[in-house]
Amino acid sequence: MTLSPYPVIRLLPKVHARAIRHGAPWVFDNELVTDRRTRALAPGTIAVLEDSDREPLGLVAFSPASKIMARMLDRDATARVDREWLRVRLARAHAMRERIYDTPHYRLIHAEADGLPGIVIDRFGDIAVIQPNAAWAEVVLSDLVAALVEVTGVTTVLKNASGRARVLEGLDEEHAVLVGQAPEAPVAVPMNGAIYMADLTGGQKTGLFFDQRPNHAFAARLAKGVRVLDVFSHVGGFALATLAAGAEHALAVDGSEPALTLAAQGAAQMGMQDRFETRKGDAFDVLTALGEEGARFDVVICDPPAFAPNKKSLEAGLRAYERVAKLAAELVAPDGFLGVCSCSHAADLSKFRAASSRGIGRAGRAGPLIHTGYAGPDHPLHPQLAESGYLKALFYRL
Amino acid sequence: MTLSPYPVIRLLPKVHARAIRHGAPWVFDNELVTDRRTRALAPGTIAVLEDSDREPLGLVAFSPASKIMARMLDRDATARVDREWLRVRLARAHAMRERIYDTPHYRLIHAEADGLPGIVIDRFGDIAVIQPNAAWAEVVLSDLVAALVEVTGVTTVLKNASGRARVLEGLDEEHAVLVGQAPEAPVAVPMNGAIYMADLTGGQKTGLFFDQRPNHAFAARLAKGVRVLDVFSHVGGFALATLAAGAEHALAVDGSEPALTLAAQGAAQMGMQDRFETRKGDAFDVLTALGEEGARFDVVICDPPAFAPNKKSLEAGLRAYERVAKLAAELVAPDGFLGVCSCSHAADLSKFRAASSRGIGRAGRAGPLIHTGYAGPDHPLHPQLAESGYLKALFYRL
Repeated sequence: MTLSPYPVIRLLPKVHARAIRHGAPWVFDNELVTDRRTRALAPGTIAVLEDSDREPLGLVAFSPASKIMARMLDRDATARVDREWLRVRLARAHAMRERIYDTPHYRLIHAEADGLPGIVIDRFGDIAVIQPNAAWAEVVLSDLVAALVEVTGVTTVLKNASGRARVLEGLDEEHAVLVGQAPEAPVAVPMNGAIYMADLTGGQKTGLFFDQRPNHAFAARLAKGVRVLDVFSHVGGFALATLAAGAEHALAVDGSEPALTLAAQGAAQMGMQDRFETRKGDAFDVLTALGEEGARFDVVICDPPAFAPNKKSLEAGLRAYERVAKLAAELVAPDGFLGVCSCSHAADLSKFRAASSRGIGRAGRAGPLIHTGYAGPDHPLHPQLAESGYLKALFYRL
Repeated sequence: MTLSPYPVIRLLPKVHARAIRHGAPWVFDNELVTDRRTRALAPGTIAVLEDSDREPLGLVAFSPASKIMARMLDRDATARVDREWLRVRLARAHAMRERIYDTPHYRLIHAEADGLPGIVIDRFGDIAVIQPNAAWAEVVLSDLVAALVEVTGVTTVLKNASGRARVLEGLDEEHAVLVGQAPEAPVAVPMNGAIYMADLTGGQKTGLFFDQRPNHAFAARLAKGVRVLDVFSHVGGFALATLAAGAEHALAVDGSEPALTLAAQGAAQMGMQDRFETRKGDAFDVLTALGEEGARFDVVICDPPAFAPNKKSLEAGLRAYERVAKLAAELVAPDGFLGVCSCSHAADLSKFRAASSRGIGRAGRAGPLIHTGYAGPDHPLHPQLAESGYLKALFYRL
């Protein structure tokens, strides 16, 4: 037996290893022996996890400052987390995306569910953007980047360090170009027949969100020949998808001028600038103003930021979702459609649905729920973290 | 004020009318005054519902023998439920389906959510099949059929009286031809690029289930060039959709010889009989036998009948789902996909997911959940019955 190059950390005697053996991906700070030796381990150290009887349970990434103190990397405690190990994980994730998507534009790595806890990688053709949101990712970063180039053939790799999780892990917030050159202009990204412009160096997170793709596709099926309102549009997610599917007109509302400029650039690339308008402003104000103007739309979609990112903000967040649904429902033409989305971890499907239905009722409207959608298959869920599916989209017919 | 032609039924004094005013679609037997006059009302009587202060709440359909003793028809208590009233409801539902689907093959009326409680109507081109699963539907049947022909232009209307709900409502189980002539041969139904053969006079329920259409479409995206196993295939739902999307080969397993014959006829209509096989038998036995033969498939999908149709059967049902997932997971090739479905009312998403994940674990396999799907938009949900979404499909990558 080769001596492991990795230090050992151990479960407390009272902690049953059964959950870990059954696939639990995380070990919390109150489940581990944290003696002086353990506390001295650097953030991101790869360690062998043992139960209290010194039976190895697997390899973990250790984060002393995080409540999630160890993340399972490999159930084989004799594995070596090297470039080849990373290549195998990347290749597995890559094969799945290439099977499902027609073009290389997708989330390539979605953290735990793709076997690389805390790491997110988005792919925009020849460009990959890594979010190394856990300390271990910084430790293996050069091997990860080399394996990524090998598996995908991308020519540019950017590091996006703006993830909120990085602060919890005590990591820097510096963006960087790891391979190639940062694109000087926004990058064109095809999805659902539309073209989105992604600003990969200046934008929010990775400049474009792939998670709403299936919900964009559903909205597109409702939109042929009709008028669409896309509120909290970012770079035009729902507006451009519905235009591509034949919407007569789409109005995108957002508080960010740069996002609306990118949306307009996308519409222009599609040759549909004549059917596209933008309106900058606070979404609640614009919804209220549109109502007062008597504006009506056949399809209205609201994709707000997380109003309830955590338990503390849940009640206020649900009230905000209710208010969005009310204001938006008032703008839906008879027999039209309302789509409302939530990316709040704390608001589960049932609570979000109840808040939205209440808002619709307060607008004096009613109608069946015709679709419940989540993030696409490039945002897989670890089976034991399945409740972590944060994105929900509900479509009503009013 | 015109005198209502409808008798009055009334909420008990202790029952708050708020839920009804907020859109609740049902009134239960313990919420109504059931005096001699009320008990004398015929099943299917349309009545005015009042609160205990004699304020009208709307029109309801009355079912004295059912626990759901009154179903809301119209919140306007002065409405008249005549042919025109039925036409408006049908036209609303029809407009939505015609917007979403390329061909006239869909569930046209999905009961409460389409404003016609207890009534289901499926459309197969020029043929409509009505399931009048509530007594009031029998009472208005001739107007309903006339309005249906007017709205859709169908030339044949069949009555399918095999719904379980009919027994609870004390209705007959007689099939009938209401308009035109019953088709002598199975009818070709296009969905997702495949052709399904629906036996509208002899089949289960309405001979073909439209509810799985979006999940068939998801499976099809995984299937190009690979080998597919469709267990509990009925008339070939997943098998034919994956063949249409370019699967190399599909094997359909079902206990029903007539269903498999229809599946084979569909494959022949598609010109894909060379890539299609069937195997008749108990699904558990066939899964076990395939495992012993060493058979492996890139995509395995199991769409069993409801193992947990009610609370009493929940525990046994969840064990059956676990067993299906275990046996099926053992047949999935490395990096392949497993789809498991449940149409059990009693097994909610979280319980079904847990049972499926346990089964996969017991097969020594693991992998992320890449998709959660429900029935399509032609199976809308009443917002206050949204928990009634019975169909769930989970896709894992193993």
